[in-house]
Amino acid sequence: MAGATLGAVMALASSAFANSEIEKRAKDPNQWGAPGRDNQLTRHSNLKDINTNNVDKLQMAWSQSTGALRGHEGQPIVVEDVGGKPMMFFISAWPNIVQALDLSDPDHPKQVWNYLKQTDRDESAVARACCDTVNRGLNYADGKVVFHTLDGFIIALDAKTGKELWVTKHAYPEHGETHTGPTMIAEKLVLAGFGGDEFAARGRIVAYDLETGKPVWTCHSTGSDKDVCLTPDSNKANPQYGTFGHDIGISSYPKDEWKIGGGSPWAWFSYDPELRIVYHSTGNPGHWSPAYRCGDATHEECNSGKWDNKWSMTIFARKVDTGEVVWAYQMTPFDQWDYDGVNENILVNMDVDGKPRKTLVHFDRNGFAYVLDRVDGTLLRANKFVTVDWAERVDLKTGRPVKVKEHSPFERGRNVAACPSAMGGKDQQPCSVDPKEPNKFYCPTNNWCMEDEPQERTHTQQGTVYVFANVYMYPEKPGISGKVKKFDVLTGKADWEIPDPYPNWGGTMNTDGGLMFYGSNSGDFRAVDRNTGKVLWSRKLGSGIIGNPITYKVNGKQYVSVFAGLGGWIGLPITAGLDMEDKYGAIGATAMAKATGLDKIPQGGMLYTFRVMD
Amino acid sequence: MAGATLGAVMALASSAFANSEIEKRAKDPNQWGAPGRDNQLTRHSNLKDINTNNVDKLQMAWSQSTGALRGHEGQPIVVEDVGGKPMMFFISAWPNIVQALDLSDPDHPKQVWNYLKQTDRDESAVARACCDTVNRGLNYADGKVVFHTLDGFIIALDAKTGKELWVTKHAYPEHGETHTGPTMIAEKLVLAGFGGDEFAARGRIVAYDLETGKPVWTCHSTGSDKDVCLTPDSNKANPQYGTFGHDIGISSYPKDEWKIGGGSPWAWFSYDPELRIVYHSTGNPGHWSPAYRCGDATHEECNSGKWDNKWSMTIFARKVDTGEVVWAYQMTPFDQWDYDGVNENILVNMDVDGKPRKTLVHFDRNGFAYVLDRVDGTLLRANKFVTVDWAERVDLKTGRPVKVKEHSPFERGRNVAACPSAMGGKDQQPCSVDPKEPNKFYCPTNNWCMEDEPQERTHTQQGTVYVFANVYMYPEKPGISGKVKKFDVLTGKADWEIPDPYPNWGGTMNTDGGLMFYGSNSGDFRAVDRNTGKVLWSRKLGSGIIGNPITYKVNGKQYVSVFAGLGGWIGLPITAGLDMEDKYGAIGATAMAKATGLDKIPQGGMLYTFRVMD
Repeated sequence: MAGATLGAVMALASSAFANSEIEKRAKDPNQWGAPGRDNQLTRHSNLKDINTNNVDKLQMAWSQSTGALRGHEGQPIVVEDVGGKPMMFFISAWPNIVQALDLSDPDHPKQVWNYLKQTDRDESAVARACCDTVNRGLNYADGKVVFHTLDGFIIALDAKTGKELWVTKHAYPEHGETHTGPTMIAEKLVLAGFGGDEFAARGRIVAYDLETGKPVWTCHSTGSDKDVCLTPDSNKANPQYGTFGHDIGISSYPKDEWKIGGGSPWAWFSYDPELRIVYHSTGNPGHWSPAYRCGDATHEECNSGKWDNKWSMTIFARKVDTGEVVWAYQMTPFDQWDYDGVNENILVNMDVDGKPRKTLVHFDRNGFAYVLDRVDGTLLRANKFVTVDWAERVDLKTGRPVKVKEHSPFERGRNVAACPSAMGGKDQQPCSVDPKEPNKFYCPTNNWCMEDEPQERTHTQQGTVYVFANVYMYPEKPGISGKVKKFDVLTGKADWEIPDPYPNWGGTMNTDGGLMFYGSNSGDFRAVDRNTGKVLWSRKLGSGIIGNPITYKVNGKQYVSVFAGLGGWIGLPITAGLDMEDKYGAIGATAMAKATGLDKIPQGGMLYTFRVMD
Repeated sequence: MAGATLGAVMALASSAFANSEIEKRAKDPNQWGAPGRDNQLTRHSNLKDINTNNVDKLQMAWSQSTGALRGHEGQPIVVEDVGGKPMMFFISAWPNIVQALDLSDPDHPKQVWNYLKQTDRDESAVARACCDTVNRGLNYADGKVVFHTLDGFIIALDAKTGKELWVTKHAYPEHGETHTGPTMIAEKLVLAGFGGDEFAARGRIVAYDLETGKPVWTCHSTGSDKDVCLTPDSNKANPQYGTFGHDIGISSYPKDEWKIGGGSPWAWFSYDPELRIVYHSTGNPGHWSPAYRCGDATHEECNSGKWDNKWSMTIFARKVDTGEVVWAYQMTPFDQWDYDGVNENILVNMDVDGKPRKTLVHFDRNGFAYVLDRVDGTLLRANKFVTVDWAERVDLKTGRPVKVKEHSPFERGRNVAACPSAMGGKDQQPCSVDPKEPNKFYCPTNNWCMEDEPQERTHTQQGTVYVFANVYMYPEKPGISGKVKKFDVLTGKADWEIPDPYPNWGGTMNTDGGLMFYGSNSGDFRAVDRNTGKVLWSRKLGSGIIGNPITYKVNGKQYVSVFAGLGGWIGLPITAGLDMEDKYGAIGATAMAKATGLDKIPQGGMLYTFRVMD
């Protein structure tokens, strides 16, 4: 229970139906009603039936196949009252099979329905998904299960029957757009982005009406202020981040580069129902040969601020009703490493330098853990949470990183070493936090580096591989490729860390039972003492774990569930059957996968559920 | 290579290396060295660390994905001394991935190698496999892992490294031949059949040299005496079964029907090392429109014995060194129901009518449990083990069933009801027996019936669907589709039975711990008190279980393993994504799968391993 004053946690107004429902479910520890449990993405549960005293008695209660192979990055949700029954819903990797399990007999769930969209599927999405055919989970509100498919549909089903309520085409693989998600439900809206920066997609998010599936607003990541939904009020507190009136979403690129400028918001959304602000962030500015994204010639000129490639690599705070930008902060201007900014933005309140703050915490691919005031975007902290050599530090005033030229790929044909690798100090795998200890984050980290040699650009075609770099990745220290850390975002220090020979690609979950759960790519699912970092229990599951644990309680018994299914970018060489001898395969993933023995882990797609049995 | 008496074939030393090795392993209860544990296919283990007193403490110790989906009918093997290490080997459904796990740390196995044949694969085998893309397991001897692929390769790998030692093309999908196996190693030979009766294949078995993969002898299921490897000594004790000198493998078919006459030996082999006899049986005589397989016109004429369609539906006892037929007994002459004879032949010794006998026990698809003297083929018993209406009884003297015309499909366009269904009173899912109680068999049964309407034949092309019947299947009693029985083959009575709403498609295993293990298509894996039939423990696994449990002991701890992976003929509608509204889909499987809710079970391909933890 270290950390700042706890502040009053969210005295929520009874706002619109769907959102108040999600907030209500988040307050009930028995449920796990949204991908991050709550829309603040804490991945924390108050449950403590399973705790440090009895976790050694944890055993598998049941298991269920997802019906698909390849990477399973997401998590199920559990909702208590679907037609009077506790239900679990989850979705598989491509082809995105949804299952609905009745948990009335919680040791023996029964599948009530399953759903697989059969018509108009676009198989080309599989080859166009840069980083495997994963799906990061579905949502529930208003009696509807809402989810997305890799090939770009957003679908709402009746949660009781599995019948389609609406189907909307949202993303277009032919334009390089593929959707790994998840979506988020906030108020009466379904918010959806997509991926595709390595296929020349132009990022955007769309808010759909939960009731009808019709679009309500659309905001782009690049382009005119209007396209981006910038207003004269945007970034008022921090005009140095960029302001309205200059169309810097166009002018910070040469020529028409912004049209194929990336910035795809391909992962987690979060939401503050008091502020009525949606938070999401954006990916890299398209291809990886940086000089083409600059109108000047030298490294220094390209990093002057003129060629920031706005609004790639940016955390956006948008008004939920309109998408208008409240603030927008770019972590990595003029990206030279593929440090996508899409990692989760976790909303907790903490005291910073003696002042209570509504904060947003973001562990970026670039290796810095950012703490911002989520009301106005003011940058409060940016500590390194892994080895970072591409930048000395982040200037808290300007918000800009102080880049190290030696570790900044720029010229075509010049090979440059940098840490972390393009997969980041952490990729999509989410951290968790206990809001009672709001500065301490349980984070899976990637501990490897890369050599990156930018190449000639040979085309500007959307929907076609659009990278133009030879990338080789390698463990920072042989034998240690991943870690899980309890990291203090205010001090920049870790309380403890657990090294792993395998790359970590799964998220964490923490509970009031004094436990933190996470899975390794070895297949080991572990329960850790939150205070000491000691592994108290583990079980070897059937495939590499890149999913995120959840916990719930039915009939007086607490359960923990997690997917096993090797994949994601790090597992793509195996799931896509690539040549393991290709040094640059899967933009660096192949060499890392081979170096760490991931090719010895079988593919899978399974859900395992555990409880304490006496 | 057709024909018997291939010169002085392999005058093998009395206890050739490989076989004595398999027998030795079978004597060590810690190992499970062959698909049926021993080559007598008892599926019995002397282990009793897990027993009726502590089985409630059984829990999942570890799990491993096979890396594939669709049906998983087989089982792993466990060998104690591969390069000084205890190892587990198993193979997935198509594309047939082999994994080698080091069990030195038995709660945390480590994959040492995996193997997937990459070249010359024939994807057409998937559509040509009548009954899903299953693989019933691999074998080990002489430091080699030997296995088959659906598309017809037999492959030997170095067990330590996974390197290919030899690769032989054995079956040809273009001729309708697909291989679900398993093979068997006896003496220095690898014995292999294949399936394809519904694709106009002509059955044969081939014995390959374990050392080189070169064929040693080949015997067909239809054709001339020479092709079938019949000799003047064949069936000497029971000439009524058919004898040498008449080429009845040709003459019991009209015209050239024998060339597309089926009789594929597509499942289990067994072996008696004292008698040096290999036992295997054969499938149905090709298509299902019986009148085309008879040179006469009436039901009575076609059942006179002249048109038996020899040697389909036959148990063959063959000399291991040459393939020469010692005896051959046909269960279902002139098949009218698709009652393939391929079910396992289990070798135990028992007193029959006061006389000690070396017996062979065979639970046939046709619903009769046969007991034969395995030395000379004399028929000792043929009791019904499920509801059977197509025959009154089997005449023990002639060996022929007394057919009931009313339940015998014959004329084209006339719909006939019969029990059991074409899937049989039991299909490939193997029974087990404790040799100490040799007349009591633990058998999974199918409890459903069919309507069968033979159709016009439209082609005689090998490799193309070759059925010509509309078949509809339905549960014998609503709510009960499968059973597991402890069945006395001498009295024809069951000690107990366990009904299941789902069709049973997995095998059983029994131990000296007083337990019998089996899995349901519901996903429930169960431990049963052998004496009472009471379910003492169960755990819901991730998919329907059609695999066969095994048990082994490493580092002083007994483990039990089983595959989960819905499929096989009964699961094909789900695994192949067929239209669930097609009454005749998958030759009857679709209606049964729908009636029993199999479409609510997800596909999978997982191995689960359990032990007692305190």
